[in-house]
Amino acid sequence: MLALSCAEPTDVSFSLTGFAARGGLTDHHVDGWGVAFYEDRACRVFVDEKPAYQSPVAAFLKSYPIKSRNVVAHIRKATQGGARVENCHPFMRELRGQQWLFAHNGDLRPLGEPEPGPYAPVGTTDSEAAFCFIMNRLYAHFAANTNTSTDTNVDDIDAVFNVIEQATRTLNTFGIFNFVLSNGQAQFAYCSTRLSYVIRHWPFSSARLVDGDLSVDFAERGTPADRAAVIATTPLTDEVWTACQPGDLLMFRSGALLRRAHVAVPADVLATSKYAVSEQSAVPA
Amino acid sequence: MLALSCAEPTDVSFSLTGFAARGGLTDHHVDGWGVAFYEDRACRVFVDEKPAYQSPVAAFLKSYPIKSRNVVAHIRKATQGGARVENCHPFMRELRGQQWLFAHNGDLRPLGEPEPGPYAPVGTTDSEAAFCFIMNRLYAHFAANTNTSTDTNVDDIDAVFNVIEQATRTLNTFGIFNFVLSNGQAQFAYCSTRLSYVIRHWPFSSARLVDGDLSVDFAERGTPADRAAVIATTPLTDEVWTACQPGDLLMFRSGALLRRAHVAVPADVLATSKYAVSEQSAVPA
Repeated sequence: MLALSCAEPTDVSFSLTGFAARGGLTDHHVDGWGVAFYEDRACRVFVDEKPAYQSPVAAFLKSYPIKSRNVVAHIRKATQGGARVENCHPFMRELRGQQWLFAHNGDLRPLGEPEPGPYAPVGTTDSEAAFCFIMNRLYAHFAANTNTSTDTNVDDIDAVFNVIEQATRTLNTFGIFNFVLSNGQAQFAYCSTRLSYVIRHWPFSSARLVDGDLSVDFAERGTPADRAAVIATTPLTDEVWTACQPGDLLMFRSGALLRRAHVAVPADVLATSKYAVSEQSAVPA
Repeated sequence: MLALSCAEPTDVSFSLTGFAARGGLTDHHVDGWGVAFYEDRACRVFVDEKPAYQSPVAAFLKSYPIKSRNVVAHIRKATQGGARVENCHPFMRELRGQQWLFAHNGDLRPLGEPEPGPYAPVGTTDSEAAFCFIMNRLYAHFAANTNTSTDTNVDDIDAVFNVIEQATRTLNTFGIFNFVLSNGQAQFAYCSTRLSYVIRHWPFSSARLVDGDLSVDFAERGTPADRAAVIATTPLTDEVWTACQPGDLLMFRSGALLRRAHVAVPADVLATSKYAVSEQSAVPA
């Protein structure tokens, strides 16, 4: 699971190259993958149920120059739901004229009765069910002005953060729930068991990926205005990453960490999951 | 604008090859394009604001073997909204756990106050606004059981047809409104000024595209169970196509025409559009 929040449209082939290589070659995540990125208001989603190393879509993306301020990517190891296209992350839904993206790393027990609202899963994953839960909460909160064409409410990212946090505290009681969620303006990232991030400022130093030996000199491309936050399940480079605490909900925008809310995850909640905190290495990424 | 409804998963590179070639080379539609296709419940959308002949996504799709029962494609000539990714058809929304696709050929006056409901346009086209209008009508009709996980209502494609027809009769009063709409089960196609279709049965005869000189022998690939309906703004092959009448709403499923409803489009409605019926050749496809 990987997300980028950048101040300027950024070439993301660097991080994705190493990330994609983990799908089947150097890691155990082989049940599909997905990359989604915003271009202003538009959001393109590329998913494939094939492992990245044998996916023609992944090969195409490698040579396709993507420039985006907000990116969400995911390599899938199926815990619930088969290796099918509809079960690949990131998932996307539209709310009040914005596209929203979600990718999850973890494993949740069934949520029971769905949250009332317009969003329902297309596939069979716990992840998409949780995403729809959050989206229905957001809809309930921001739908008051549905009849108007203004999106002023949902543009208040602090209000969005509050709704997401409430939903997240509930959902985390169902199991392991590391995620990234974006509406194209901000990246919301939650650490249930493991999540790290690094903020890169101009001039970017060259950095080597953990899962490959490719490197990109960001300084060649960047400007002094450039800044990028990279959020991932585990550090992808040899830079100094900040490890989040379980229970951290973070909000990034334009490459900066804007807000953090922390509530400790109850130990008994995680102990009932088949992936205990002490077995983080078994948690799918 | 092109749609396929097939009884069996069908290789769609044939029709799309000629269709894509129209984007900038042999036709005047150069403000982007899109192809979307269902794989069981999943729906993949590939759009690009670049003309098909210089789009790397189009080049990739040409070599990517797609097999699908339901396909929607569109080459865009902008009438409203710039050449931006979010303005490219087909548009997609989720309703009750199904992905819905929409592509439009025409030009509508502003719809005024949006229809109440959860769907709002991301881009600035009349087409996406009309799509959201229909989706909000469908949501209002089928949301009664939103709290349940069963989708029995929305699986009643005749009920879906009725809601779409009501919305379509309203929307057509705003201008030219040829469209295709699919939920992955059926294709709904409306002729406001021009729309044609052809039903291919096994054994498929070889057919030559109008916009290119490629041909594909469907007989080599098909089985006796194969049947495909091809729906397009104008005939794409030298087969005998059926020209729809303005005011025809058609429903195709598994390659068969299941239902047709006709209400004549008032002449004064079309006369007020900048594209009159007598100037069909000026209507963007």
